[in-house]
Amino acid sequence: MNIPMVKNVLAESEELAHENQKRLSQKSVFTINIMSSPGAGKTAILTQTIPRLKSHGIRCAVIEGDITSTLDSELIYALNVPVVQVNTAPFGGDCHIGPHFISAALEMINLDAIDLLFVENVGNLVCPAEFNLGEDRKVVVLSLPEGDDKPLKYPLMFRVCHLCLVNKTDLTPYLDVNFENMREHICLVNGEMMVLPVSAKTGEGIQAWVDWILKERAGVFN
Amino acid sequence: MNIPMVKNVLAESEELAHENQKRLSQKSVFTINIMSSPGAGKTAILTQTIPRLKSHGIRCAVIEGDITSTLDSELIYALNVPVVQVNTAPFGGDCHIGPHFISAALEMINLDAIDLLFVENVGNLVCPAEFNLGEDRKVVVLSLPEGDDKPLKYPLMFRVCHLCLVNKTDLTPYLDVNFENMREHICLVNGEMMVLPVSAKTGEGIQAWVDWILKERAGVFN
Repeated sequence: MNIPMVKNVLAESEELAHENQKRLSQKSVFTINIMSSPGAGKTAILTQTIPRLKSHGIRCAVIEGDITSTLDSELIYALNVPVVQVNTAPFGGDCHIGPHFISAALEMINLDAIDLLFVENVGNLVCPAEFNLGEDRKVVVLSLPEGDDKPLKYPLMFRVCHLCLVNKTDLTPYLDVNFENMREHICLVNGEMMVLPVSAKTGEGIQAWVDWILKERAGVFN
Repeated sequence: MNIPMVKNVLAESEELAHENQKRLSQKSVFTINIMSSPGAGKTAILTQTIPRLKSHGIRCAVIEGDITSTLDSELIYALNVPVVQVNTAPFGGDCHIGPHFISAALEMINLDAIDLLFVENVGNLVCPAEFNLGEDRKVVVLSLPEGDDKPLKYPLMFRVCHLCLVNKTDLTPYLDVNFENMREHICLVNGEMMVLPVSAKTGEGIQAWVDWILKERAGVFN
């Protein structure tokens, strides 16, 4: 007799994440999962970051997660790095990237030809925080115009990430919030969190973020 | 023999939404479900809107949806209107408000004493679009700093809503995007959508939004 059983979906997801992690680690590919609200500036930060990493001899690739469209992929493609678009719309419009999407995308990337893989997650400050993909580091981008209450209202994201980039600091003179307010509220949720101010528009702070990547990568693959 | 069956969760959700709608309609309470990314300005818009509606003789109440915290409720409470906080964290940290949360919240509001109910959804441009709550109108707030590609990347939200408020127009001089870009992209996704520019900071456009509410309400309960 064959009695169907409800599988533990989360355990299966963790197993897949672990497989991705092993596969990437065997090829010495350092992987960063970047998450944020819609429009916080993930793609704009990547377009500033990838050329700088290239000048440090780091070969990047990007997995672009979106519900629909290839708008962000096109911006990354223009940088002349491998990019794989993951659209969740044909799979129910998932509000996050699961590790199965990464497994499929890895089939399309030559892991011997890259040193660093960015995963740009679906713009969502809630659901992506719940899923491990097999990444080495999780990074959250928070933009100043979103306001300094966000860490308190969406705490899980700020608990699971290793670094927070506070973007759009160029708007500081026109807002009622600044980097220091933001950092204080982030630290209330996660005192261990590294927090860096950046402006993808002016390039401010991007080098400090690149330095962080290089240091973290060296800590894993030295 | 009792064989357990997987219930159609979505059908059950629709049924609950319909019950809410009937209950609100019987009391002539016009209900607006407000959705957006985190930090687009839903609460700030409500704090500008509710006193103006009061001056038109409209008695408001608010259901505040958050994963955790009562930060937004406290701002609304200061306006001296009934407010019920719905925190989804104890229920798995839901990334949206489902109709069952509304049914529960309605138990705590005297529907005879109000004319208009705002539901401020969890900040998320993806998942809340998928659930009817029993509301009369759905409104999405999009803030200028989020960028004009958002309607194309998160189309479902822009398909299901009746009105889009484009907030933070006070930042126009400092951004590469303006209200007209935004409106064009919104219209590509939903040509029927009403789009209004507002600034919760300066109060610009708030009266036009209040007029829209009064007109829509009059169309339902004349």
